[in-house]
Amino acid sequence: MNAPHDTIVAPATAAGGAIAVVRMSGPAAFAICDGVFRGTARTGDTAGYKVLYGTVADGGRTLDDVLVTVFRAPHSYTGEDAVEISCHGSRYIVGELLALLIRRGARMATPGEFTSRAFLAGKLDLSQAEAVADLIASGSRAAHALATDQMRGGYSAELEALRSDLLRLTALLELELDFAEEEVEFADRTQLRSAMEEIGTKIDRLIGSFALGNAIKEGVAVAIVGRPNVGKSTLLNRLLNEDRALVSEIPGTTRDPVEATLNIDGILFRFIDTAGLRATDDTVERMGIERAYASIARAQIVLQVVDATDPAADPLDLRAGQRHIMIVNKIDRIGAAASLPAGAIPLSAREGKGTELLLESLRAAVDAAALDEGETIVSNSRHYEALRRARTALDAALAGLNVLPPDLLSEEIRQVTHHLGTITGAITDTDVLTQIFSKFCIGK
Amino acid sequence: MNAPHDTIVAPATAAGGAIAVVRMSGPAAFAICDGVFRGTARTGDTAGYKVLYGTVADGGRTLDDVLVTVFRAPHSYTGEDAVEISCHGSRYIVGELLALLIRRGARMATPGEFTSRAFLAGKLDLSQAEAVADLIASGSRAAHALATDQMRGGYSAELEALRSDLLRLTALLELELDFAEEEVEFADRTQLRSAMEEIGTKIDRLIGSFALGNAIKEGVAVAIVGRPNVGKSTLLNRLLNEDRALVSEIPGTTRDPVEATLNIDGILFRFIDTAGLRATDDTVERMGIERAYASIARAQIVLQVVDATDPAADPLDLRAGQRHIMIVNKIDRIGAAASLPAGAIPLSAREGKGTELLLESLRAAVDAAALDEGETIVSNSRHYEALRRARTALDAALAGLNVLPPDLLSEEIRQVTHHLGTITGAITDTDVLTQIFSKFCIGK
Repeated sequence: MNAPHDTIVAPATAAGGAIAVVRMSGPAAFAICDGVFRGTARTGDTAGYKVLYGTVADGGRTLDDVLVTVFRAPHSYTGEDAVEISCHGSRYIVGELLALLIRRGARMATPGEFTSRAFLAGKLDLSQAEAVADLIASGSRAAHALATDQMRGGYSAELEALRSDLLRLTALLELELDFAEEEVEFADRTQLRSAMEEIGTKIDRLIGSFALGNAIKEGVAVAIVGRPNVGKSTLLNRLLNEDRALVSEIPGTTRDPVEATLNIDGILFRFIDTAGLRATDDTVERMGIERAYASIARAQIVLQVVDATDPAADPLDLRAGQRHIMIVNKIDRIGAAASLPAGAIPLSAREGKGTELLLESLRAAVDAAALDEGETIVSNSRHYEALRRARTALDAALAGLNVLPPDLLSEEIRQVTHHLGTITGAITDTDVLTQIFSKFCIGK
Repeated sequence: MNAPHDTIVAPATAAGGAIAVVRMSGPAAFAICDGVFRGTARTGDTAGYKVLYGTVADGGRTLDDVLVTVFRAPHSYTGEDAVEISCHGSRYIVGELLALLIRRGARMATPGEFTSRAFLAGKLDLSQAEAVADLIASGSRAAHALATDQMRGGYSAELEALRSDLLRLTALLELELDFAEEEVEFADRTQLRSAMEEIGTKIDRLIGSFALGNAIKEGVAVAIVGRPNVGKSTLLNRLLNEDRALVSEIPGTTRDPVEATLNIDGILFRFIDTAGLRATDDTVERMGIERAYASIARAQIVLQVVDATDPAADPLDLRAGQRHIMIVNKIDRIGAAASLPAGAIPLSAREGKGTELLLESLRAAVDAAALDEGETIVSNSRHYEALRRARTALDAALAGLNVLPPDLLSEEIRQVTHHLGTITGAITDTDVLTQIFSKFCIGK
């Protein structure tokens, strides 16, 4: 983190569009801009939320026609004086403009430095800042909804409520220290236990929501497994309506997991087509099969495909919480009277029959009730880790409730508030901040 | 071309940045925007060049926090009412925002349609509109300078001066028709010839400038030729300071022309490393050698490399106007007293000696005096074609000057003004306009 008293500049848009926006923020933003901008007025004399038209010149050489938007502290993203310069979307012009502003005294911003300044200025808390990055990366309706909720601070409010409950409890405990001689008990241990257990339940719910939150954010992993030639690649192609996976009649063709994504009803699914599972002496193919088993272990949903003309299924070693969907493919090759395994979805990937039911099953396999009900869902692995540490600390505090003196008990509970505080940034650590913002893009 | 009475929308920035800008222009721009925007004020009630902060919502679902810039007709790029919506740079959000605005009555803009509307509204002429695309594509200081000059209208002014001279002459000729009985000669044929020849000289100068203009815009093509193993790839790598071309000790390694660009003093050079020129029976290699000869034919500069230890050079069949630079490579392997071919640049690509002199020679081989003197330079091949047609028509008019009756002579001269007029768009053709703007990007 750099101390926010210098003026930073960075491109805020990707290269290659009709226009490009360069963002500059800091105490000298107006002075630096006015040194190169010739327009309808000086930015330093202009009210916030006003746009000026003019040209940017480097000495006698005109660089471009631009629009400059003026933001005055504290009414800007960073809370500082800031300008956004909108120029023609040429990589060359953006490069020259940045070089010019840097020669005039600005400094190239580090990744996420604008958002980092917004955080340091108290414009948003840490989980909201992280939600900005998630929002930019969001690729589905559900991921967008999660990021939006988090950015709007609903999550922060819930965490701060938990934290303030705990801080109230520790304050009561610490009060007992002042009256240590008298052995008064301001914090009734039974009430304290019940309050801490209630907080534990809330933390558990948040921890439990991560499986869904992470799946929504990263996409729900679906492994397609089955014996060679049962039509796994054909099924994937049918679902994607395109020829992404290699399909042939030679068993063992698919050696690399093919990853493709499909948006079903606002939720992103990542499909992994695994190599046909069978005993083989081919080294390359065996490596493919090992990868297939690894894919299965990681997947949230395992789609097992069997051939209707030979519906034997290999036993799968599923882990707890993994959903299993059985597909009987190639039903076009058997009679209507043929019996199918119970609970299996009959379909013909080749003819496109039965895929509707499969899509419904996939969507139903993701328990998104919490999402629909607007509950807070944790999608950030840093938050998940902090919540798990908070839960461990809470367990330690609960274990010591009736045995520890109030000062040590208070210290145990403070560990819980500490871990919860790292999520919103109420407790900050420079290394953690640096790490978080370094994952942002330049210009954000 | 669509009639500009509907409202168009398009992303104005490339996907992948911190922010994205969506541009909407047309009579319903404010109404459509206000239907989805909840902010500090309605765009329809807001003065131009003002920015509003708020959210975009689709029914009850908040899509994003946005800044909306308001432009009121005629003070906008297109001359129409327009808004620019700046949102988070998420592909998903931009897609949802576009879909929402389209559902509310906007239409997805075709490539270049904003600029096309600006042209139709008289905001800029055709050569200026084309310069906008060139400016966005410009990749060097010189190309940027050309596009900027053209966009500022210096070129248009010169062409319009030529056109108005010619129109004045035809008006005088046509006046003679009204007095046909009297056989008066309002347009003195000697003065007419001298005026037309002067115009011809100016057109010739513009035509002649195209070689430089095109080289600046596309990059100056430099073919590196020489016998196998004289160090052509090593030289290219040395110039580029990177390992882009494949280098090995086996003669005939480089089978494909490797194209790389280098910016020398503001001018872009495109280097083509050609396959070693030698007799061979290898079919693939022979194809490479044929490509090498084709590259040499197209290049503006031919860099011929010979080995200092065996400085024999194959004769080259250069075309008129092609510059030839002779390089003696591997001087580290010969004694200081060894004699070199006259005019050749001695260097050691391996040790990086002598490359400064080569860079100077390359820069000097491009006669950019016209550029430095601020003369109009034609860089657009459509303009070049139009100028050549104008010159042909002018020759026809000159040939008929003393033999044609005034009405036919006037018609010949009108052909010249017609072709000149197509450059600025004073004369327009729907097909030509469609073709020009279809080459623009979406959102411009």
